[in-house]
Amino acid sequence: MKAWLSHLSLDLTVSPSSPEELARAELSSALPETVFRLDNDPSLGEGYRIQKKADGSFTISGGKTGILYGAYAMIRSALSGRGLPESLFSVPKYGLRMINCWDNMDGTVERGYSGRSLFFEGDRFQYNPLRMMELGRLMASVGLNVLCINNVNVHNPAQLLLEDFLPEAKRLADLFRPFGVRLMFSVDFSQPMRHGIPTADPLSPLVQDWWKKTAQEVYRAIPDLVGFLVKADSEGRPGPFTYGRNHADGANMLADAVRPFGGKIIWRCFVYNCRQDWRDVQTDRPKAAWEHYAFLDGEFADNVILQVKHGPFDFQVREPLSPLLLGMKQTNLAMELQLAQEYTGHQIDLYTMIPMWKEIFEELPADNIMSVAAVSNLGRDDNYTGHPLAAVNFYTFGLMAWDPETHAESAVSEWIRLTYGFRSEDEKALLKVLLGSRRTYEKYTAPLGIGWMITPHDHYGPNPSGYEYDLWGTYHKANREAVGIDRTEKGTGYLLQYPEELQKKYGDPATCPDLYLLFYHRLPYSFVMKDGRTLIQRIYDDHFEGYEETKAMAEVIRSLPFPEPDREIILSRMDRQLYNAKEWCDIINTFFRRLSGADDARGRTIYD
Amino acid sequence: MKAWLSHLSLDLTVSPSSPEELARAELSSALPETVFRLDNDPSLGEGYRIQKKADGSFTISGGKTGILYGAYAMIRSALSGRGLPESLFSVPKYGLRMINCWDNMDGTVERGYSGRSLFFEGDRFQYNPLRMMELGRLMASVGLNVLCINNVNVHNPAQLLLEDFLPEAKRLADLFRPFGVRLMFSVDFSQPMRHGIPTADPLSPLVQDWWKKTAQEVYRAIPDLVGFLVKADSEGRPGPFTYGRNHADGANMLADAVRPFGGKIIWRCFVYNCRQDWRDVQTDRPKAAWEHYAFLDGEFADNVILQVKHGPFDFQVREPLSPLLLGMKQTNLAMELQLAQEYTGHQIDLYTMIPMWKEIFEELPADNIMSVAAVSNLGRDDNYTGHPLAAVNFYTFGLMAWDPETHAESAVSEWIRLTYGFRSEDEKALLKVLLGSRRTYEKYTAPLGIGWMITPHDHYGPNPSGYEYDLWGTYHKANREAVGIDRTEKGTGYLLQYPEELQKKYGDPATCPDLYLLFYHRLPYSFVMKDGRTLIQRIYDDHFEGYEETKAMAEVIRSLPFPEPDREIILSRMDRQLYNAKEWCDIINTFFRRLSGADDARGRTIYD
Repeated sequence: MKAWLSHLSLDLTVSPSSPEELARAELSSALPETVFRLDNDPSLGEGYRIQKKADGSFTISGGKTGILYGAYAMIRSALSGRGLPESLFSVPKYGLRMINCWDNMDGTVERGYSGRSLFFEGDRFQYNPLRMMELGRLMASVGLNVLCINNVNVHNPAQLLLEDFLPEAKRLADLFRPFGVRLMFSVDFSQPMRHGIPTADPLSPLVQDWWKKTAQEVYRAIPDLVGFLVKADSEGRPGPFTYGRNHADGANMLADAVRPFGGKIIWRCFVYNCRQDWRDVQTDRPKAAWEHYAFLDGEFADNVILQVKHGPFDFQVREPLSPLLLGMKQTNLAMELQLAQEYTGHQIDLYTMIPMWKEIFEELPADNIMSVAAVSNLGRDDNYTGHPLAAVNFYTFGLMAWDPETHAESAVSEWIRLTYGFRSEDEKALLKVLLGSRRTYEKYTAPLGIGWMITPHDHYGPNPSGYEYDLWGTYHKANREAVGIDRTEKGTGYLLQYPEELQKKYGDPATCPDLYLLFYHRLPYSFVMKDGRTLIQRIYDDHFEGYEETKAMAEVIRSLPFPEPDREIILSRMDRQLYNAKEWCDIINTFFRRLSGADDARGRTIYD
Repeated sequence: MKAWLSHLSLDLTVSPSSPEELARAELSSALPETVFRLDNDPSLGEGYRIQKKADGSFTISGGKTGILYGAYAMIRSALSGRGLPESLFSVPKYGLRMINCWDNMDGTVERGYSGRSLFFEGDRFQYNPLRMMELGRLMASVGLNVLCINNVNVHNPAQLLLEDFLPEAKRLADLFRPFGVRLMFSVDFSQPMRHGIPTADPLSPLVQDWWKKTAQEVYRAIPDLVGFLVKADSEGRPGPFTYGRNHADGANMLADAVRPFGGKIIWRCFVYNCRQDWRDVQTDRPKAAWEHYAFLDGEFADNVILQVKHGPFDFQVREPLSPLLLGMKQTNLAMELQLAQEYTGHQIDLYTMIPMWKEIFEELPADNIMSVAAVSNLGRDDNYTGHPLAAVNFYTFGLMAWDPETHAESAVSEWIRLTYGFRSEDEKALLKVLLGSRRTYEKYTAPLGIGWMITPHDHYGPNPSGYEYDLWGTYHKANREAVGIDRTEKGTGYLLQYPEELQKKYGDPATCPDLYLLFYHRLPYSFVMKDGRTLIQRIYDDHFEGYEETKAMAEVIRSLPFPEPDREIILSRMDRQLYNAKEWCDIINTFFRRLSGADDARGRTIYD
């Protein structure tokens, strides 16, 4: 048993038969001295209510899985040293708390940095049932309840999860069910065409019938399947646009097919022109999602959920909130986060995400969305997340998905205690490193919200102009005078997609927060920031600081008593992060000095 | 039968038994009306002497293969409309006229743009014997006599060509022998270590014995094998440096092993630090070969040939002559060219090389070298070279390797006549396009000798700073003031590796030819060229011209009566070249305008 449950010695050689049985086993194993009464109260659903009785025993009431979540809440509380609360009541803010795996059936994981797929190898299912139960337990322990096992880019033969592989998919669903985890499949919108149907037009009766029949068979095997996840008309995936239909047409057709079974369609809104001409300054990629979806607000069936990436680009270190998440009041929305550190260090560099998520929720009214999803950072590595400290993201995502008001510091502390049980000063030191790691990474990479100065395709390490003349719509257009894209009404107009108060806040460089400056504005290097520094000096300072902070972080990390094998993995990755941070720092500074001609005001070395 | 021999209908279903038999068959098939007498004169070696007799018959005298080359000379002359010369005497300037295939046994071809390997698939030999004979005939028809069939990067299991695959390699050698083509193998310097020998140290008797024993077995199977081609201590390949030995130690050890059988060691001099820190301005990659080899002049065994790339970098559009080719007077040298258009358009863009080779020989005293090699541009495509017009490079390489004084225009004309038999005006039009194609490609790509502004790894299309912060030692260091590397004595000192007159010529921007300016000098954008234009304006002009020339070239190409399937292939690649040329033109101009701030003096569009 790994990760934060490593200190729980529950022997799971056979799957528990129900969440309640699992709850009972976990409690008696973790807290053998305490008496718990489990009280099934379906009215509480996934929520739970815990009461201490006068005799020192506890009653955990809840729906089927609510009891399980209550049990884990007690265990987390006890094992993290907070003791057992006398009373506790909690219901999840979001009904679907989803992990999206980008696993391919050939065993690779798209943007996976933790080894090969946990589920697949050699174009078929191949998994260790014990690890599936461990994963179920890891998910349940932090309240996660949906697992989409295959990549949204549905590569052959993953489309057969709905067909030939269905019996095996059913067995996997059975394995996860006692953990309160329901499966979901990514599907290929054009799948009917593999069955002699000449079209995938969502308005074609042939297509509709195929999906209905298929849904029927899928739900016969897996009655509690969450539904289908769809990436359509995006980065080369097929979709309704081929047939002159819009995305409501496409999503609603699938929604009809799964409705009789209580199924949902999770429809990803990651649609943009990925063949953009870099010379075209009218098109601005961040505007794309709004342009494709906002006008459809209210048109989607009630069992369709639009899954929107948190920012308008693609999981950069810093992005503003996607305007769709603020503007589609009559549509079911899920917010998509990414645990996989695609652009944020590949699980080599430390990057604890919860401070970023807290910032996101500062601008996002929590009720605007009804679900959250995160792209998985899991793989077949023994520690599941490649970097042992990357597990904090999986853990805290669970807590945030349950309750977005989760306190960042407490959540990370809790994870440290469960995982390493450090003495107080070590815990504090690690806590500080983790909580600061995102800002540090941000400092040494692309400055002040511009993003994308990263090695193309691979997405690790610096390449300041790697995307500059490419087709992806991700440009900074730095020249000898200025850098950034004007996205105000005077520029691309992207900012007009926001409510007026945000337009005001971000529209004026004087009120725009520094860290978003170059996302919204094109500014000369001589621009004077609120604190009196020039823009170019701020860029230099951030980069030098980012590297210095990384060095300091490495000192702390080296001093901590991580157990093996974690220690060796952590230290070797720390060395790679140091190298990476130095490369970023020097390359970005050199890049801007070559353009601006400005020397560092503090005389630090910027290479020619 | 393909390429320039397509009009020769010789039916080769079984291999001829000897070059003489082949010569006879070719002559009677191509020139059935003419009587030829073949006269074996071993004293002529590969050369030939042809005399017309009073009765109208011809005598072709020559050594075994000399007769064959004489026969092809007559056929080429007749079929290209020049008639049959009354007398002709020719001996090849270089004894080894080599094609180096970078074919891997898995069927891929490193830097191959003509489909998969002609020789290998699925980690074993797999070839069409008829195509092998076609290839033998293509080589013989232009005097090429050495074929190294496997990649210099010897990937598993190609090391087994010397062992398990030897019987099959022997069969291939037997197939090629009647065409005057002898095989060569690339070998892995560390191969003894796969046989329980704990080292590959060239001074170890165990290692020496292993190679001697292996050479004996190899030569027993293939007595006329040319020898071994070795890439050692280069880009991750093993070599003598591992054991503190120098390259003479390494090469001479192998030379000892093959000497009893008349074998040669072709030792590649492509050694440089491919893990360079971009911050390091002391190291200058073009200096590397000289530093590694020049001091060893005179130390190599007489059956070692150092194979030196023509320029000090790596097959860029324009490079000066490698100083090694001028400075190692006591060493056998081969010059390495590249037919594969790795950096020069991937056999999509037109790039006829002979004008470049002629320039090289203007600075290279032909006697400085004793062999020439070219990296193959061949593959399993029906037309062998991917782009039908890329065959001109294979053809003219053969003629140049035989006689570096070959006239470029005549050679290309001859190829056009043999291949397409165009009417005079079409031939002239195509000739002009082909002869100008290299300069056009040069104009729209990296300017004035700096090179390397190409998409990393893939090497097609522009990426002005793609290599700028990388490990490969290929930097331009363009900033807002200036661009280029000072390689004079005031800079990296590379120029000091040349004879004094060249130091003078290139050392002063005033006398340095324009097209080498940014290779040797770092110059401000405001630098005034000999013709009065500023450097930046010259860059803009070249790029606009390069694109305009490509458009004009496309017009000509579309007007020519190429037969199918060539026409379709040529036109579709021409469209891709047009796109590529436009990308290059605009991206390079934008890149330099962003840095320099200079507008185009002629008001043409340079994008922001």
